[in-house]
Amino acid sequence: MEKHTIPYKIYLEEKEMPKQWYNVRADMKKKPAPLLNPATLQPVTAEELSRVFCKELVKQELDENTAYFDIPEEILNFYRMYRPSPLVRAYCLEEKLQTPAEIYYKFEGNNTSGSHKLNSAIAQAYYAKQEGLKGVTTETGAGQWGTALSMACSYFDLDCQVYMVKCSYEQKPFRREVMRTYGARVTPSPSMETNIGRKMNEEFPGTTGSLGCAISEAVEAATSQEGYRYVLGSVLAQVLLHQSVIGLETKIALDKYGIKPDMVIGCAGGGSNLGGLISPFAGEMLRGEAQYQLIAVEPASCPSLTRGSYVYDFCDTGKVCPLQKMYTLGSSFIPSASHAGGLRYHGMSSIVSELYDQGLMEARSVEQTAVFEAAQYFARIEGILPAPESSHAIRVAMDEALKCKETGEKKTIVFGLTGTGYFDMYAYQNYNDGKMGDYVPTDEEITKALKNLPQCNGF
Amino acid sequence: MEKHTIPYKIYLEEKEMPKQWYNVRADMKKKPAPLLNPATLQPVTAEELSRVFCKELVKQELDENTAYFDIPEEILNFYRMYRPSPLVRAYCLEEKLQTPAEIYYKFEGNNTSGSHKLNSAIAQAYYAKQEGLKGVTTETGAGQWGTALSMACSYFDLDCQVYMVKCSYEQKPFRREVMRTYGARVTPSPSMETNIGRKMNEEFPGTTGSLGCAISEAVEAATSQEGYRYVLGSVLAQVLLHQSVIGLETKIALDKYGIKPDMVIGCAGGGSNLGGLISPFAGEMLRGEAQYQLIAVEPASCPSLTRGSYVYDFCDTGKVCPLQKMYTLGSSFIPSASHAGGLRYHGMSSIVSELYDQGLMEARSVEQTAVFEAAQYFARIEGILPAPESSHAIRVAMDEALKCKETGEKKTIVFGLTGTGYFDMYAYQNYNDGKMGDYVPTDEEITKALKNLPQCNGF
Repeated sequence: MEKHTIPYKIYLEEKEMPKQWYNVRADMKKKPAPLLNPATLQPVTAEELSRVFCKELVKQELDENTAYFDIPEEILNFYRMYRPSPLVRAYCLEEKLQTPAEIYYKFEGNNTSGSHKLNSAIAQAYYAKQEGLKGVTTETGAGQWGTALSMACSYFDLDCQVYMVKCSYEQKPFRREVMRTYGARVTPSPSMETNIGRKMNEEFPGTTGSLGCAISEAVEAATSQEGYRYVLGSVLAQVLLHQSVIGLETKIALDKYGIKPDMVIGCAGGGSNLGGLISPFAGEMLRGEAQYQLIAVEPASCPSLTRGSYVYDFCDTGKVCPLQKMYTLGSSFIPSASHAGGLRYHGMSSIVSELYDQGLMEARSVEQTAVFEAAQYFARIEGILPAPESSHAIRVAMDEALKCKETGEKKTIVFGLTGTGYFDMYAYQNYNDGKMGDYVPTDEEITKALKNLPQCNGF
Repeated sequence: MEKHTIPYKIYLEEKEMPKQWYNVRADMKKKPAPLLNPATLQPVTAEELSRVFCKELVKQELDENTAYFDIPEEILNFYRMYRPSPLVRAYCLEEKLQTPAEIYYKFEGNNTSGSHKLNSAIAQAYYAKQEGLKGVTTETGAGQWGTALSMACSYFDLDCQVYMVKCSYEQKPFRREVMRTYGARVTPSPSMETNIGRKMNEEFPGTTGSLGCAISEAVEAATSQEGYRYVLGSVLAQVLLHQSVIGLETKIALDKYGIKPDMVIGCAGGGSNLGGLISPFAGEMLRGEAQYQLIAVEPASCPSLTRGSYVYDFCDTGKVCPLQKMYTLGSSFIPSASHAGGLRYHGMSSIVSELYDQGLMEARSVEQTAVFEAAQYFARIEGILPAPESSHAIRVAMDEALKCKETGEKKTIVFGLTGTGYFDMYAYQNYNDGKMGDYVPTDEEITKALKNLPQCNGF
């Protein structure tokens, strides 16, 4: 291990950082299906979307053909505070596993939000500021997105209103305090501040809330206040566009050292990290320039790609957002209370869904205890305490490395380590105490949830 | 801000990383006073120290003349997983403050222990492993040192027993779980496992413990188990030696871009971070090669340098460790319950004390609310949520930058950002809620505590 030509951590120089985001849709012959207006079941227009989202972001959302978007200088300046993120060669893990495989991970956790979410938060805050808005609203479950958005808004002096699912608000007071430290107003959802919140509190006294309800509250708050728009941290095409910075940096770092990966692995909830990581690789495949094994890893408790259907569905349980064609378990599917809050989403980014449907990507599901076993193993060897979400990718990367050990193949494995687990210690405690279980939904549960799909004939 | 020749973050290349630690005592004409055996009041011998500490570490502790120690390859390999740490140019902070000063900070928080403590923990674990020990024991208050040691021991497959002050054990369950995730056995102190612990529990039923008692328990546990030694995270000369890697990297990074700092600022509790950061700069001053303004920043609630006496004192309240000549408030001084747990130490590293006494360094004390004001300001501008301890240095760096704004001087300010505040959100909550107060001990309190010093005539 003493002599190696590739450093432990590949840091790009500032001048090597990408100056543009990459829109993988531009290289897709068959594009993802359009978003539909839930009222008219017709493709949403820019005008309709602009009531909820910033104009520039609507443009990005609807543009299927522009391959590259310039990253504004102000965003680049912010990126320079915490990017480029390192591409780490997992020498210690390789040695411990005694595998001939070479393992790399792109680590997105070295910023205060603790995850890749900041890449899109700063972009969305920037465009809101450019449009002259007073502020933005959003929802947060586990809290990573809310934290990232708070940081971004604080940087641009924008008001930030976060509706945090009440049970998280109460169980994760530290996440809440980070957001408050960055000046955000954090409201437990359902609140008494919105119509939908009051209705929920009346109908279900003592409810601890849901992500679906928090989304509805945030959208209502955005559309009912002058100078506010709603922002979302995953699923949307604009978010994948911003997150392409992960994959682009990874590609530049690999190219710099002449490394060609055999497989690229990412965890998948709404698809923002995975989509961002694999975009440039998928682009090469779409253009016929290269071949990679791209693997999405999802929790067995919420297996939208591996067990869902590719249909139009509601993006939120409140049914206020546009309909999207995606791999989904049905918007009424309630994932079990797993510890990977960031992956508990019934659907999947339409871009990721379409790439998967076209066979450019494969998907695996892994169970929670196996994930935490990998998380702990990784923490002890590589030093970084990973987020439960990220650990899904670690699990499959380790499994693949162990397969190489059996076959003797010297594959090059790249995976995305999206974030750190410092605010997930309840989950680790559960695992340390041997109290963690696994939950896999039955076929009946999935079939039942898929019965309540919207009727979108013609699309 | 768009055009700059110095990047936002200066990362050394792996090959530029220091291969040796620097022992500043070698360049001091007047050396720090020797450690004394508390029973005999004579200088401790290597043999006496070896009952408690690893042999190689005892050598480092007692060696005043060797300027450079090779860093073993195994430790370098571990360093390469999270080092070099970035030297960050605080462009955003400079712009926001509208100061002509140039501000840099050396950021040691990008590792799972969340602080610089890992630099010495891995060294101490390595030498314990080399000596063929089964494990090590230690105490932890705020939890950073315990976390760092757990990580280091897990890497070298060493048993790690941490005595955690009971009130922290209960109030910081997440810190405890990080340690457990790394395989450490964490025992609330006072425990029923040691004589001193049982005695304390009997004498003071329901006591929530103290650092002094936890040290005594850890030392007892080390000396009463075959194959165990005790390790300490600050104060000692060996710890400052390991922490010199901070200052050495800083110096190399500055030299690489031809930057000459006017001042170097660090927070000071036991002195490990400060000593490590300033060592190479103090060395140049001692050799007459350069002049810098070196500034230690301590909490007004625990002002050992600014209001203590330079005398021999007990290092621990349990009075089992060697006596040390240092700036101290008296080992019976009880600092108020401030939120910078890592700075609540009655004394100071003997090396730092001697440098201060020789006039090579100055010291300032700052109050808690002013520190958190700076912490929040910094977090919002530079993105990083700082530890309360580190924020003491931020406060003074900002004050100095604001002075430059008044005078128009273009000074170059370097400060140490020792760690992140992710596990300090109770403190931030207190500040966010406007409930934080300041506490400054009276002259009478300090005079009283200084009456109980050991009698060390002749030294």
